[in-house]
Amino acid sequence: MIERVQTSIISQIESLETSKFTDDPWSTSSNSYGRTRVITDGTIIEKGAVSVSVIPLSNLSTSRASTISERGVEVCEGSEYAAAALSLVLHTRSPIIPTFRSDVRIFSLITDGVVTRSWLGGGCDLTPYYIFDDDVEEFHGMLKGLCDRNGRDYEEYKKGCDDYFYLPARKEHRGVGGIFFDDLEFNSSTFKFVEELAEMWMPSWLDTIVERRKGQEWTEEQRDWQLIRRGRYLEFNLLYDRGVKFGLATENPRVEGILVSAPPLVKWAYNHKVAAGSEEERLQKILETPRAWA
Amino acid sequence: MIERVQTSIISQIESLETSKFTDDPWSTSSNSYGRTRVITDGTIIEKGAVSVSVIPLSNLSTSRASTISERGVEVCEGSEYAAAALSLVLHTRSPIIPTFRSDVRIFSLITDGVVTRSWLGGGCDLTPYYIFDDDVEEFHGMLKGLCDRNGRDYEEYKKGCDDYFYLPARKEHRGVGGIFFDDLEFNSSTFKFVEELAEMWMPSWLDTIVERRKGQEWTEEQRDWQLIRRGRYLEFNLLYDRGVKFGLATENPRVEGILVSAPPLVKWAYNHKVAAGSEEERLQKILETPRAWA
Repeated sequence: MIERVQTSIISQIESLETSKFTDDPWSTSSNSYGRTRVITDGTIIEKGAVSVSVIPLSNLSTSRASTISERGVEVCEGSEYAAAALSLVLHTRSPIIPTFRSDVRIFSLITDGVVTRSWLGGGCDLTPYYIFDDDVEEFHGMLKGLCDRNGRDYEEYKKGCDDYFYLPARKEHRGVGGIFFDDLEFNSSTFKFVEELAEMWMPSWLDTIVERRKGQEWTEEQRDWQLIRRGRYLEFNLLYDRGVKFGLATENPRVEGILVSAPPLVKWAYNHKVAAGSEEERLQKILETPRAWA
Repeated sequence: MIERVQTSIISQIESLETSKFTDDPWSTSSNSYGRTRVITDGTIIEKGAVSVSVIPLSNLSTSRASTISERGVEVCEGSEYAAAALSLVLHTRSPIIPTFRSDVRIFSLITDGVVTRSWLGGGCDLTPYYIFDDDVEEFHGMLKGLCDRNGRDYEEYKKGCDDYFYLPARKEHRGVGGIFFDDLEFNSSTFKFVEELAEMWMPSWLDTIVERRKGQEWTEEQRDWQLIRRGRYLEFNLLYDRGVKFGLATENPRVEGILVSAPPLVKWAYNHKVAAGSEEERLQKILETPRAWA
């Protein structure tokens, strides 16, 4: 499923873009493999990655087993598992268009070579630099519709997203959220939900928000604000993101694949302040206190 | 001492620069205070900070106490302590001139309002984008001279620096090092050493390397390489730096003060490769295997 979705998403993006995705199939000595496909210097996407990664069979490390156990799933060190994921991060050139991030992932426990139990996880979310209420409401509305149709709790997953993409030191959320869930027991109904989620990514962002905003001009000041805000994106990834943390802690990490999510260009300015009453201040306040959008 | 050195360093830099340092004195509800002085958009320094911070009296948290204990100093949770530090980070505009980082710090245990024991720490190091052997040898030579004159072990402190500024996931060191030490018992001799170290910072970088290289032109490709390498600087700070980690984990962290060390502008490019036989490759190899410079 994930390779089909990867191909489909790439062709949707390429049909709108001046750049093409590069293709980097990889494998490691520990049998993991994947395909990192990266677009750079596009008209819409300044840097983006649509990546598939597969761990066909491995043994849980102590720390990973205990973290998974903390989340209520009983596993122990040395258990055999398999995992696969499709992840997207699309950093836009225009500060008017939000960065899009999403993933779906499956984690399976294996006993005597047979999958005994599997869990699904995934989500998608927006990191805007300027907020257009209609865009965010439509995005969340589509996600709520998806959850409702599939008997999943949108409110729970929306909160899951707000809680996960949070920078405690800054006391702010990274973006306007979306949905994020983990440890969803695999069955035909949950698999259908996750498949529909992945198929909704481009309709919820590329075909709607991007389509609507791509012609809109922006100023150098707005671009500057985007570069500063991208710093928070990176701070989250390096300081708090679970995937980055575990990824980098493995024995021979594929660092470039893990950090492909980093924005292409980032600014850090000491003590940057937003002007009272500005759109930048409005964003800041919404990031401090997440809103109900759907 | 640290405030005098802060003022002196600032006036030395300002005498060469087109920009001035801003002055941001601060204090927190927990009685900490300090002065973050930042220079931006200078001819030589694109972004730099010379910061003093003081914790006049506080209680050790469990995690901090255990980390300090791990380093061989007996302290326990709730012990009263005081601390002060002077830290510099000077990000250069020119890719030809290395970034300079340094600090001195004192940590004191307090019993019944009286300092019972104190330890000193500190160091300085270079993060170059291009390596001029003579510059690095002179820098390390000055540090070795300082250590020798003060009966301190340069080799140990040089290794301390290489070991500390290391990115395990990348299997590379952040720069060409310098010296770095911790837990040096305070007495008149060690204090003199640390004072002389701080007084040597500008002579070892501004008066020598910067003076020699500031007129040298660079290309856009070299600038690009600098922006990519700055990514590693930031990766180290967010993923591994002890000060950043502890700083951000405190209850009401002064995030801007902690992240003032971030470079002004940073690039992340997926899978950037250096050309065989290039100066960039030479740097890369030296960062993988630190050299003896003095």
